[in-house]
Amino acid sequence: MKAREKALKHALLQAQRDLATRDYPVIIVLGGLPGAGKSELVHQLNEWLDPRFVTTSAQWKHSDEEEDRPYYWRFWRHMPPRGRMTIFLGSWYTQLLYDGASGRLEPGHYDQQLKRIRQFERMLRDEGVLLVKVWLQVERATQQRRLTEDSLRLRHLPASARAWAEDYAAAQRAAKTVLQGSDGPEARWQTVDADDPHERNLIAGETLLQMMNAHVARSAPGIGETAAARSADGGRAAPSQALATLPRNLQLGKQEYRALLREQQQRLQKLAWQAHDAGRSLIAVFEGWDAAGKGSAIRRVTAPVDPRLYRVIQSSAPSDEERAHHYLWRYWRSLERRGRIMLFDRSWYGRVLVERVEGFAHLHAWQRAYAEINDFESQLAEHGSIVVKFWLHISPEEQLKRFREREHTPHKQHKITADDWRNRARWSDYEQAVLDMLQLTSTATAPWTVVAANDKRYARVHILQTLCDALETALGTQ
Amino acid sequence: MKAREKALKHALLQAQRDLATRDYPVIIVLGGLPGAGKSELVHQLNEWLDPRFVTTSAQWKHSDEEEDRPYYWRFWRHMPPRGRMTIFLGSWYTQLLYDGASGRLEPGHYDQQLKRIRQFERMLRDEGVLLVKVWLQVERATQQRRLTEDSLRLRHLPASARAWAEDYAAAQRAAKTVLQGSDGPEARWQTVDADDPHERNLIAGETLLQMMNAHVARSAPGIGETAAARSADGGRAAPSQALATLPRNLQLGKQEYRALLREQQQRLQKLAWQAHDAGRSLIAVFEGWDAAGKGSAIRRVTAPVDPRLYRVIQSSAPSDEERAHHYLWRYWRSLERRGRIMLFDRSWYGRVLVERVEGFAHLHAWQRAYAEINDFESQLAEHGSIVVKFWLHISPEEQLKRFREREHTPHKQHKITADDWRNRARWSDYEQAVLDMLQLTSTATAPWTVVAANDKRYARVHILQTLCDALETALGTQ
Repeated sequence: MKAREKALKHALLQAQRDLATRDYPVIIVLGGLPGAGKSELVHQLNEWLDPRFVTTSAQWKHSDEEEDRPYYWRFWRHMPPRGRMTIFLGSWYTQLLYDGASGRLEPGHYDQQLKRIRQFERMLRDEGVLLVKVWLQVERATQQRRLTEDSLRLRHLPASARAWAEDYAAAQRAAKTVLQGSDGPEARWQTVDADDPHERNLIAGETLLQMMNAHVARSAPGIGETAAARSADGGRAAPSQALATLPRNLQLGKQEYRALLREQQQRLQKLAWQAHDAGRSLIAVFEGWDAAGKGSAIRRVTAPVDPRLYRVIQSSAPSDEERAHHYLWRYWRSLERRGRIMLFDRSWYGRVLVERVEGFAHLHAWQRAYAEINDFESQLAEHGSIVVKFWLHISPEEQLKRFREREHTPHKQHKITADDWRNRARWSDYEQAVLDMLQLTSTATAPWTVVAANDKRYARVHILQTLCDALETALGTQ
Repeated sequence: MKAREKALKHALLQAQRDLATRDYPVIIVLGGLPGAGKSELVHQLNEWLDPRFVTTSAQWKHSDEEEDRPYYWRFWRHMPPRGRMTIFLGSWYTQLLYDGASGRLEPGHYDQQLKRIRQFERMLRDEGVLLVKVWLQVERATQQRRLTEDSLRLRHLPASARAWAEDYAAAQRAAKTVLQGSDGPEARWQTVDADDPHERNLIAGETLLQMMNAHVARSAPGIGETAAARSADGGRAAPSQALATLPRNLQLGKQEYRALLREQQQRLQKLAWQAHDAGRSLIAVFEGWDAAGKGSAIRRVTAPVDPRLYRVIQSSAPSDEERAHHYLWRYWRSLERRGRIMLFDRSWYGRVLVERVEGFAHLHAWQRAYAEINDFESQLAEHGSIVVKFWLHISPEEQLKRFREREHTPHKQHKITADDWRNRARWSDYEQAVLDMLQLTSTATAPWTVVAANDKRYARVHILQTLCDALETALGTQ
């Protein structure tokens, strides 16, 4: 081994061991035409690096489980946890490049896909991820020679990659468009000349090393951000009256309630199967004040639905695997296949509610979360999911009444904790967070429904009705 | 709510909260003919229980990702962690019952499937799992009435369930065979009369409660087992000479090595694609003494293989999710789809090596692990995987030499830790564990290959050759 390679290898190992102590992951995206030597570079990187802390994600055949979820699910499931690195040999660029080379793509689709890529990569970088994008540039003659030598691999490319592999000029054109559209000061493509394999590997390795070292310097913890978040928060206008002015007299008598509940539940029972048969999922988010009745409302929703069709997802304390990833990872992970009903008892909105108010998330973290969440939900909707979000609203007086009742009812005592009282003491902070959330994340495809929940009966019927209406509209069955 | 139901609900909640502090999970298997009311019982249980700690596993459509792995993978992926409960609405009984009712099953298949079920359930119970199997017994007339009322669900049963749903007598016969073959003192089926829905739910709930409470009493920690393991171990005969008598002079010159390595790597490159095309996976386990050269041998294996076709799985420290499950769960979880090469750098054999020697696993735990591992590997083989296991053997003198070298080479220092020296001090304990492992887990479908690894070159070529031979034999291409 030459001195240059030896030095690089040791420095990479050192950088990798240092990474293991950091709170961000490294994502390496390898791109380049067939024959550029991506696989060979992966071999070389795996040879240099400590294999315990690097994974290669190279799935190029998509499963029906992947097709059954939004496109980016297949990448989320291979995200490295903090302190680790993943090499994406197939990535969010692959299909776009195949399609581009084939001439199948309208210019509008390019823009849409590239925008999604930019959003995704911005989200990664905002979270502290070191994103290393390496493009291996290969001459036509070199490509021809290599593809002749290694015909096995070429034979296993999917049919949609035909033009990409066989039409050098078309592939180069597609690559140019995609690279230009996804290059930016913070997600720069590193172009590496790939004609000489040895030089290619060394330069790619040195680029990786240089970026890893530079990232350490840049990612010093943002001291004081939390304090800044608090003061910025304090500087805002007083909470608007939007929530306080919800009509409080919405209520139902017992008999009326029973009849309406039964009616809506029968509707939902049928609609759940229809949605399943149509391959449409329903994603319902339940947020609300403590003791607003989320759990009991969810049970009224699930009661008529076949257990094979729904799942309730609780946002309980994250596992260490979940903590080692982006906050949205656990929700991506919990997505069911097409045609199911997912009921989230609290959700990703924790980021802009409890984490904001309690200072668990930095100012910049929760502020950018609105856009990240909108992007997440738009991916769900684009994939055909029906997204409905409920804020269960009760008055402070009603909450106090329910807290007291829980304290005095033996089998309900476990439902009330010191946290509940603490949260209650910060009612107006939470109210501001709720108002911002409603304003910034109500979109056409994922609207919020504020539910007057002082009367539990009214709230339950309202929720069921809203879900049924949303299903009917989406399925075109009303 | 009547007093009996109220009391049951509170007691179940109490038992469930207690469970959250225990180190075992609860698995509820619900069985019964269509129309017996399994879904309704699930609703009722979900209504009574705290939804944060109970999950329903009700996937009845199998994905290609599931078909691409051994049959039980689909159940392993839904196993509850310790302290939680999962209700299996579809389970390891479902397909067998469908097939049985249809008359498609030969008696031999029944026996084989039932044996696998018994092994699986024994493994769960041995691990401390509380397994509650409830069979809902329904009369023909009741069934007919309910199926007429709820035609939606019936319409969504898979085609293979036709006889099961439509031929009451055939379904009853199949159920009888399966229940008899899977009933035992420790995995008793609880038969519940299901004609009266209210009684059915109450009795099922009371059965669950009674079993949860009884299990608490039974599962007091087995104090002293570890000590017993140690003394039982000490009482064994001295290690045999099987390992010591491996020829030590197996070595290769540099030039010969290069030629042979190249030859075998070219073989493997082609065979990897052939195995992929044939849908056969190769599962290679690498165990061996510290510093025996597992990592560098694995790199020689992966070097010629397309990165899309292989994955190296490290047995590093388990995550908290992994620790909350059976020790085999993390390996089930890491199984790739058909046609891939999986290289395990250490493996499930940790149970009978380090965990046995260091006393991390109780006597009974590591002793039963041999059978559990054989069962696991036979499932891999039955699904078409080629299983090859290597023990890389070096002499104590060679190990000492390598340890010293690591200590004196700056970029290798991280590879040697206090653990390595500690393990070395217990060489003869480990040797006994290795000999037992080789003897008790060498099977026709998953044989061990002991590799003389004092000479790294010889070891690498030997490993590559063994893998290629195994692939050729399995693929019928030699």
